[in-house]
Amino acid sequence: MKYTLDELAKHVSGEVKGDSSCKIVSVATLQHADATQISFLTNSSYRKQLASSQAGAVIMSAADAENSPVNAIISQNPYAAYAKIAALLSPAEKYTAGIHRSAHVDPSATIDKTASIGAGAVIESGVSLGKSARVGPGCVIQKNVMIGANSILTANITVAHDCVIGERNLIHPGVVIGADGFGQAMENGIWIKVPQLGGVLIGDDVEIGANTTIDRGAIEDTVIEDNVKLDNQIQVAHNVKIGAHTAIAGCTAIAGSTKIGKHCRIAGMVGIVGHLEIADNVTVTAKSLVTGSIKKAGMYSAGTPLEPSQQWRKNTIRFKQLDDMAKRLNKLEKQLSSKNESGE
Amino acid sequence: MKYTLDELAKHVSGEVKGDSSCKIVSVATLQHADATQISFLTNSSYRKQLASSQAGAVIMSAADAENSPVNAIISQNPYAAYAKIAALLSPAEKYTAGIHRSAHVDPSATIDKTASIGAGAVIESGVSLGKSARVGPGCVIQKNVMIGANSILTANITVAHDCVIGERNLIHPGVVIGADGFGQAMENGIWIKVPQLGGVLIGDDVEIGANTTIDRGAIEDTVIEDNVKLDNQIQVAHNVKIGAHTAIAGCTAIAGSTKIGKHCRIAGMVGIVGHLEIADNVTVTAKSLVTGSIKKAGMYSAGTPLEPSQQWRKNTIRFKQLDDMAKRLNKLEKQLSSKNESGE
Amino acid sequence: MKYTLDELAKHVSGEVKGDSSCKIVSVATLQHADATQISFLTNSSYRKQLASSQAGAVIMSAADAENSPVNAIISQNPYAAYAKIAALLSPAEKYTAGIHRSAHVDPSATIDKTASIGAGAVIESGVSLGKSARVGPGCVIQKNVMIGANSILTANITVAHDCVIGERNLIHPGVVIGADGFGQAMENGIWIKVPQLGGVLIGDDVEIGANTTIDRGAIEDTVIEDNVKLDNQIQVAHNVKIGAHTAIAGCTAIAGSTKIGKHCRIAGMVGIVGHLEIADNVTVTAKSLVTGSIKKAGMYSAGTPLEPSQQWRKNTIRFKQLDDMAKRLNKLEKQLSSKNESGE
Repeated sequence: MKYTLDELAKHVSGEVKGDSSCKIVSVATLQHADATQISFLTNSSYRKQLASSQAGAVIMSAADAENSPVNAIISQNPYAAYAKIAALLSPAEKYTAGIHRSAHVDPSATIDKTASIGAGAVIESGVSLGKSARVGPGCVIQKNVMIGANSILTANITVAHDCVIGERNLIHPGVVIGADGFGQAMENGIWIKVPQLGGVLIGDDVEIGANTTIDRGAIEDTVIEDNVKLDNQIQVAHNVKIGAHTAIAGCTAIAGSTKIGKHCRIAGMVGIVGHLEIADNVTVTAKSLVTGSIKKAGMYSAGTPLEPSQQWRKNTIRFKQLDDMAKRLNKLEKQLSSKNESGE
Repeated sequence: MKYTLDELAKHVSGEVKGDSSCKIVSVATLQHADATQISFLTNSSYRKQLASSQAGAVIMSAADAENSPVNAIISQNPYAAYAKIAALLSPAEKYTAGIHRSAHVDPSATIDKTASIGAGAVIESGVSLGKSARVGPGCVIQKNVMIGANSILTANITVAHDCVIGERNLIHPGVVIGADGFGQAMENGIWIKVPQLGGVLIGDDVEIGANTTIDRGAIEDTVIEDNVKLDNQIQVAHNVKIGAHTAIAGCTAIAGSTKIGKHCRIAGMVGIVGHLEIADNVTVTAKSLVTGSIKKAGMYSAGTPLEPSQQWRKNTIRFKQLDDMAKRLNKLEKQLSSKNESGE
Repeated sequence: MKYTLDELAKHVSGEVKGDSSCKIVSVATLQHADATQISFLTNSSYRKQLASSQAGAVIMSAADAENSPVNAIISQNPYAAYAKIAALLSPAEKYTAGIHRSAHVDPSATIDKTASIGAGAVIESGVSLGKSARVGPGCVIQKNVMIGANSILTANITVAHDCVIGERNLIHPGVVIGADGFGQAMENGIWIKVPQLGGVLIGDDVEIGANTTIDRGAIEDTVIEDNVKLDNQIQVAHNVKIGAHTAIAGCTAIAGSTKIGKHCRIAGMVGIVGHLEIADNVTVTAKSLVTGSIKKAGMYSAGTPLEPSQQWRKNTIRFKQLDDMAKRLNKLEKQLSSKNESGE
């Protein structure tokens, strides 16, 4: 596939500055692009690479284009424009419709004739697989799961019984959807299992990163709304609800029954305890622990800064004395203030 | 299946308040239950939902039952009673005995005739599978593994050679048992692998959550005692020992050779460094790091509170000055005290 | 296999103290070794076990050997010597060359005749598998992946298209290599996928722990250099580069485009944010968050100490007052200093 710069600009409603007939075949970084490649500039720290870039063209803002030495596609949202152009130049793999001879498909499953099932995949009874959906090699899709049109389950994914996955999902290897939530009741020193009877309900246009786990609900469903984006190794406990257009980075964990709003951005390694409500448009920075509901949009953080270990050791010991220090500070203030009042 | 309230109460040694002939077919939440469903009340924050609940009956404490507008099963432990009633009303799937034609079972394996092996599962030489045990689709059970009666390995689980799994285990998808522990010796700037020659020994009535990993021992075994409950994505390093009836929430990691006592409750995302001993009945709250042995039962915590990022930034910068602040506070106290002594 | 102490000492360029003709068949711990077994002593806390050890021999330093009551192999690096002797006494499993009849190998794949492919493994088109390489049961190796000589992929591993794995790698179950990096562009409140067009390039002598994930690059490759050692459940985001001989413990996560130097030691549960550079020979202690580049070798830490929860609660509340406390401390110092200057 080969496109002129003009064609690419039209594809993203952008504007060409420079040679609009320039032919582009692929994408590359500013640093390594050649004359047949297009790159993008969004992060100001890469601006100095623009001066020496050999790229055929670069997608950038109008401001950056003013002094650009190379052909530009000017866009109000260069990163989104790049995403669309990259998808045009390097389209995702199309799977051939059909069931691999080594897949194990229960005769009661409803498989659209345009769907694709990979080698060794297991499709249990009552499963429904929509138009152009793909279940890749090694996936296990248990009873009565519904997978919507154009959803792709890449490989080695497990979806437990009765879960529902919407359309245009992209689910990466090792993901587990619908394993039992962690429900244990203590009786006389012995843990008794609490049956996990809900399911998982996933909307449309959701992406789920490698080895992420989403547990089934205890009674009602765990819910992932439309256009949620989950990175790798995230843990979503039973009866969590994640609002539409929320993005969560790797290794974050969300405990049971917590509801996260729409358009939130949760960074990596964040912990969110159970039974909380997080408002829409909340951002939480990396490695924070959220222990209470967040009612107001905004950015939240917790944690202590990295230091050379020798200094850190001294400071961390003082952390244990903080309450004592605060009380002593109060006392000193009172002493001084009474001295001042008494005219000393 | 349909039970009268009376039958259900007897099943859990509870007492009916209200219509004991009321017929129950399934469980539901307080909010969504209808007249054929039973719910439970344990968390006081849900008490207001009781007033308007349409449930056929609710399992609750004697105190809550006093003003209950709906039929009640009174129990001293409503959550455990709920667990038993839910299991009665929604019994776990029974697997048909036998080996799926697409499973790969080595002829030297000993498979009980009541055991069940799913599609595409791989059972290597010398494996032993007990009465009514289940190895689900996509599981790989390597040489000489022993799996006890009634244990269920759901799907896509890997158990490495020579590990031993007791009876009535429930192991969720993506779990890896018996991969090599992280043993590396440094010689002249090069890492050399330290062979991991121990195994993993898992007791009875253990539940292991999705994508949890339990490494084999370096020389002796990693040990998980009876009735331990592990949530998803937990990492258990080589030669860890986890005492009976301990429960650990998601994404916690335990480093090598640490011994955890019985009846501990470790919250999510906790880290426990290696070579420690944790006493019985210890609770550790979410996201704490345990760096020393804990000799006394009780609840332990670490970490800093979530704040709006703007305020947090100011406080976190001060963390680096804590030792300095403590010293300055000491100095001020001395100055003031000497002033006071000198009669100023 | 049986070796004399003399033979074992020669194998590790060590020196025998005691009966060099003593026969050794296997390794064991100091505590449980019998007269046919060899153990090692490196951690001083185990020194008291030496006195009562029944071991046939123990690998130790010259200093420890002075008072050793048992036969010794004296080594300058007892742990590395142990690793080599353990590997000699308990050699890793050799896989029989050949393709299991239930594996699915695309005819266009290039499989060395000494390579081994396990039951149910899936090898897609264009894959190349080197001399004595092993792809274990349940692995899915997607299009055009190259796996070098003597690399072992144990079981249930997924390698996405076009990734390159060097020689003598050891990759544990559940690992996912080459899943899409987390690239999402926001446009008008909707996330748009950014195609992930790079690959993963892994050097020689790398070990990767169970359920670790290494994402493919956005444009260029994610790179893991030679002799890197990764523990379980590590998350390596797109375009990360990890320098040779760096070791990383379990559950650590590294965000996109960060470059880690050579010979670093990153402990467990560490988070490293994106677009940083970490120098060679940096150590980061457990559970720290690294938010800025580290330009100097050394040891770095973050976090707060574990305390009984009741005390911790008081201290953690004060954390929110730290900036205020610091300002009040400054003010007190000024007041006292002006008092002193004014002769009060």
